[in-house]
Amino acid sequence: MPAQLISGREIAATIRSDLAERVARLKADTGRVPGLATVLVGEDPASQSYVRMKNSAAKEAGIHSEQITLPADTPEAELLGLVAGLNANPDIHGILVQLPLPGQIDEQKVLEAIDPAKDVDGFHPVNVGKLSTGATDVLAPCTPWGVIQMLLRTGNSPRGKHCVVVGRSNIVGRPMASLLLRRGEGGDATVTVAHSRTPDLGAITRQADILIVAVGRPDTVTADMVRPGAVVIDVGVNRVDAPDTDRGYRLVGDVDFDGVREVASWITPVPGGVGPMTITMLLSNTVDAFERSLER
Amino acid sequence: MPAQLISGREIAATIRSDLAERVARLKADTGRVPGLATVLVGEDPASQSYVRMKNSAAKEAGIHSEQITLPADTPEAELLGLVAGLNANPDIHGILVQLPLPGQIDEQKVLEAIDPAKDVDGFHPVNVGKLSTGATDVLAPCTPWGVIQMLLRTGNSPRGKHCVVVGRSNIVGRPMASLLLRRGEGGDATVTVAHSRTPDLGAITRQADILIVAVGRPDTVTADMVRPGAVVIDVGVNRVDAPDTDRGYRLVGDVDFDGVREVASWITPVPGGVGPMTITMLLSNTVDAFERSLER
Repeated sequence: MPAQLISGREIAATIRSDLAERVARLKADTGRVPGLATVLVGEDPASQSYVRMKNSAAKEAGIHSEQITLPADTPEAELLGLVAGLNANPDIHGILVQLPLPGQIDEQKVLEAIDPAKDVDGFHPVNVGKLSTGATDVLAPCTPWGVIQMLLRTGNSPRGKHCVVVGRSNIVGRPMASLLLRRGEGGDATVTVAHSRTPDLGAITRQADILIVAVGRPDTVTADMVRPGAVVIDVGVNRVDAPDTDRGYRLVGDVDFDGVREVASWITPVPGGVGPMTITMLLSNTVDAFERSLER
Repeated sequence: MPAQLISGREIAATIRSDLAERVARLKADTGRVPGLATVLVGEDPASQSYVRMKNSAAKEAGIHSEQITLPADTPEAELLGLVAGLNANPDIHGILVQLPLPGQIDEQKVLEAIDPAKDVDGFHPVNVGKLSTGATDVLAPCTPWGVIQMLLRTGNSPRGKHCVVVGRSNIVGRPMASLLLRRGEGGDATVTVAHSRTPDLGAITRQADILIVAVGRPDTVTADMVRPGAVVIDVGVNRVDAPDTDRGYRLVGDVDFDGVREVASWITPVPGGVGPMTITMLLSNTVDAFERSLER
């Protein structure tokens, strides 16, 4: 029996509809709504498209959304000034600076300039540090945070399970491990992180009750590397040539989907798996940040 | 053949002698020496003894050392004021506030008040965050950082090895995993973190090429839980009753030493293993902090 599909699209739609209700209730209670500012420097088409999607999803959930676009040659000091203004703006609860930034700007400096309480991407060192120490009152990076939601909402709680994370990026692998190690719901897993320096990847991945792959290379995980009955989450999104299609390419994950679905108990497709969760958790973080600002 | 002993005492002595030379050279070059301030609130005898040991070790290495002792009923604001003063003091490059603090003081608030550049304990969220993202120019928590040195100096580089860390504390387990995952020397390991919620601990620990145990419970790891030839690092220090001794107790680690030494290739004793490394790495961090302050 092939694996059941974990539909990120469906889960994301449910969470977004819950968020829209939460925003409406908060508006009724406080007369205010959460606000998200997205900052784009330059005209990279992929970045433009991401930022547009984020803003339109925010609006659909009833979140006030401001998109700020700056020219590609914006000096670092100007961007830092803009961030300082957004930090001080009481109508803005989430600040997202779209990466990558042009070469004249130090990305790390900009990320560190964002007020950690408004850091809805979860990349500020203070938030990374708190997450790494197991804090639960912290804004977590959107993609791994979305994976936790997918697991919980399909009855695949990580508690007491052996979770293997393949990849040690700061956007997915490392924060994924931090989330899975936290005490309480969504955490309490035994966690292994494997990566390019792992000599026999299959020996490690075959131990996983829950296998999360985030390396950015197609066919990194094949059927023989998966324990029968495992839950497989594929975070990768890769373009591969497909001359027979209109676009000339198709999107695949890091997992050999056709092979692995015959072995796994649950699996995420690509596209339509983890992808739709990332923007959803950005919205969720923005509403969380707004609620916490009310408590202060 | 029983395992070879990893003598923390000997490795610590070597590192301290290297540090004393480094300090002497820095003094000759700059006319200045690294400065360490230790802050103790209250009169807990164990804390008094730790702080005394830290100061005397600092002095032996040629590090300028200031011990500040405050009464147990010191208000939080006063301690925060003291920390602000030490942050601003150009002769102090490392600040250590001895934990635990009395109940009227919020420990986290105090740790976050220390300038991250002077945080020689490595507990500030900014340093925890940077370490967790793989940064190498960061002050790392002393105990796990000492474990890395022990591995490297016995020819047991973690690169490409499967390291299993038992325990997820913020002082040892979690930063240990971050260090082992970093790219470069002392890192590049495949890392598993197991803990109290791990259902079959032996099944996990038996996979370890390098097994690091930090849970604070004697006999957590017995011989049947160790793969023959593994390197075993025992971070635990526990008192067990020993009525036949003068003190009435003896110190043991988390590992059943007598049994495991018959299986492992290398093992740390308790005492004399990881213990002496912690203060040593505090001194090392202080000298590193001083050197970095010269670069700014």
